[in-house]
Amino acid sequence: MMILTLNCRTYSIQYQLFDWKNKSVLAHGEVERIVVGDSFITHRVPGLPNAHRDAECSDHKAALGLILKTLSDARIGVIKNVNQISAVGHRVVHGGEKFTRSVQIDADVIDAIRDCATLAPLHNTPNLAGIEAARALLPNLPQVAIFDTAFHQTMPERAYMYPLPYDWYKTHGIRRYGFHGHSHLYAARRGAELLGKAPAETNLITVHTGNGVSLCAVQGGKSIDTSMGLTPLEGVMMGTRCGDIDPGITSFVMKEMGLSATEMELFLNQKSGLAGIAGRYMSRRSALHEASQGDERCRIGLQMEAYRLRKYIGSYIAVTGPIDAIVFSFGEGWVDWPVRGMALVEMEHFGIKLDPVQDLMALGDGKEHKISAPDSKIAIYVLPSGEELVLNEDVAAVLKWH
Amino acid sequence: MMILTLNCRTYSIQYQLFDWKNKSVLAHGEVERIVVGDSFITHRVPGLPNAHRDAECSDHKAALGLILKTLSDARIGVIKNVNQISAVGHRVVHGGEKFTRSVQIDADVIDAIRDCATLAPLHNTPNLAGIEAARALLPNLPQVAIFDTAFHQTMPERAYMYPLPYDWYKTHGIRRYGFHGHSHLYAARRGAELLGKAPAETNLITVHTGNGVSLCAVQGGKSIDTSMGLTPLEGVMMGTRCGDIDPGITSFVMKEMGLSATEMELFLNQKSGLAGIAGRYMSRRSALHEASQGDERCRIGLQMEAYRLRKYIGSYIAVTGPIDAIVFSFGEGWVDWPVRGMALVEMEHFGIKLDPVQDLMALGDGKEHKISAPDSKIAIYVLPSGEELVLNEDVAAVLKWH
Repeated sequence: MMILTLNCRTYSIQYQLFDWKNKSVLAHGEVERIVVGDSFITHRVPGLPNAHRDAECSDHKAALGLILKTLSDARIGVIKNVNQISAVGHRVVHGGEKFTRSVQIDADVIDAIRDCATLAPLHNTPNLAGIEAARALLPNLPQVAIFDTAFHQTMPERAYMYPLPYDWYKTHGIRRYGFHGHSHLYAARRGAELLGKAPAETNLITVHTGNGVSLCAVQGGKSIDTSMGLTPLEGVMMGTRCGDIDPGITSFVMKEMGLSATEMELFLNQKSGLAGIAGRYMSRRSALHEASQGDERCRIGLQMEAYRLRKYIGSYIAVTGPIDAIVFSFGEGWVDWPVRGMALVEMEHFGIKLDPVQDLMALGDGKEHKISAPDSKIAIYVLPSGEELVLNEDVAAVLKWH
Repeated sequence: MMILTLNCRTYSIQYQLFDWKNKSVLAHGEVERIVVGDSFITHRVPGLPNAHRDAECSDHKAALGLILKTLSDARIGVIKNVNQISAVGHRVVHGGEKFTRSVQIDADVIDAIRDCATLAPLHNTPNLAGIEAARALLPNLPQVAIFDTAFHQTMPERAYMYPLPYDWYKTHGIRRYGFHGHSHLYAARRGAELLGKAPAETNLITVHTGNGVSLCAVQGGKSIDTSMGLTPLEGVMMGTRCGDIDPGITSFVMKEMGLSATEMELFLNQKSGLAGIAGRYMSRRSALHEASQGDERCRIGLQMEAYRLRKYIGSYIAVTGPIDAIVFSFGEGWVDWPVRGMALVEMEHFGIKLDPVQDLMALGDGKEHKISAPDSKIAIYVLPSGEELVLNEDVAAVLKWH
């Protein structure tokens, strides 16, 4: 009962092979620079040194072939034969309104994912390429689509509708969908566990931190609002994405600077956020270091990010009602995110009391931490994102392995 | 000591003649359809029936001439001679970063207002036309410019900077300026008075309701954040303006529907908000009536407006610290705004307890009301906007009449 999960992007595939019976990761890794040339695989087996191999992959099918060959390689592989794999799980970014949960993939599902591709062309198109590759190379295996948007389909209309012409919603599907669904779902479940409460009785704010940052207002275990919207550009300030801005800025800048809609999109997605303010792409840790050395723009950038996060937390407590905890989950490589502590100081009027020492300790490693003071009414947790675990659980649930 | 204040728009001028010594409004009114033809004046003298006269005004100078003629008219006027007027105050929408307070107008000030016109062409251009008209027709009078943006110049950079390329701020002035400054200033002063506290010791959230709706976070009497930004399009949902949306929507819709930046701007400013959801422009009272008759889209629209207002209140409490009161001020004709009560129910976890009966009573007239329950930690007030009073006080202060 092994599950291969794939996250197919335009030029890369992330993979993980999971032993469902023993609940352990056998191997994981990434093929990079697919299509563009000089492609290579980085293969990680827990307890062993990383393996790195160059191999040209002109498309996603070639890259999946390389993954399967590596997994069953005599020297660095972890299985003897690809027949040992029982199922494939595909992370699919946009499920539109059609998918409120994970589903087994068939021709109809593929058509529906293709229909959602106008909403997320950069994501759903390579997701589909990965699905086609897996159907070609592993034709006998059940395949499951797991949607980033599905967890947020419980939002009420007052949260998912935009104050825009109503037919834009009906005709073009313009509404809030949200992303990072698996990460928020995991954080919500784990947060309830840590509190010793049933998810249905738990109100939380979950914060996913990675390349993208998003918040979710979780009421009784369900998503009732989330900061990303139609696209992953909305919400808090991120590393290169602006998050919320005055919608009047877009047409103002386009006219003032003579930019096209596509050029504007590029600026807002890749040259804004902390990178826009600091003037260069950098990690939060580097920005903090530079700020301490007197770099004004790094200081402003971090203060803005914390300020905007703080406002979101306030707004979500306003709509969720009293909350039990704020749960920060971080993706791989994102444990070191000092913005969190900056956003949560002086929030005692909300019953939030940060323990600054615990917060600093949590920056140092990748484990679970409680970073609220013992007398804080609202608990604050930091945990490594368990979204991969959720993906595997969803595959097993759809295939009724339970 | 009479002050004539003017609010010059593209096709209209609002005016008020104020007796500074007796602190009373002598007359006020509006010239409409300037430039476009069929123009007319509506002249209001407290205690008398409104006077209405048709008179073609091909430009702002002709319209100001009509106002002066009406004010000094033998039958419906309130003064014998325009020489009785001592000063003219001009409401100017955008003062950029140059103006942090009201100033007496000279050639340099006119140039500076012209420089800010790129930021608000629809507003500053007619404001300038009004200033030129007054300089031509009342050449001996001191003229004062009072800026909608000035009160918000105390915002810290973490609040006014956008997470966009830094040189957009330096080169193009793209930052949060905020609007409705006089209204927020009046609400902040009056709120402190009602609480019996000094403004410098008072934290408030002020909400201006009119054609545009904006919030201000007031800490120690000063604006530290406001919901409108570079333009009056940002913030909460309004009658025809969208307020905050995913910035990714703009380029998505432009490409999907083949719209230009100008067309998009028109949609977001004039065909969105409650009008966008309901499918037609309507007052909040009409929307509430239609919703109660089963109109789903009116119901959704009002719920969205209340929900978005509620989130803003939560976010502003997060950054202001404990607040003393929320102060709603309404412009003329906007007393009947049921969204307020919908946004404030079930906010006890913030120390906010609405008195629904008082709230309903406040909808019925144009007076000051306290609409919080006696045991609410945070007071809630509703009051008629005193922005006109602030304009007159500013004129007197600039001219050192005190």
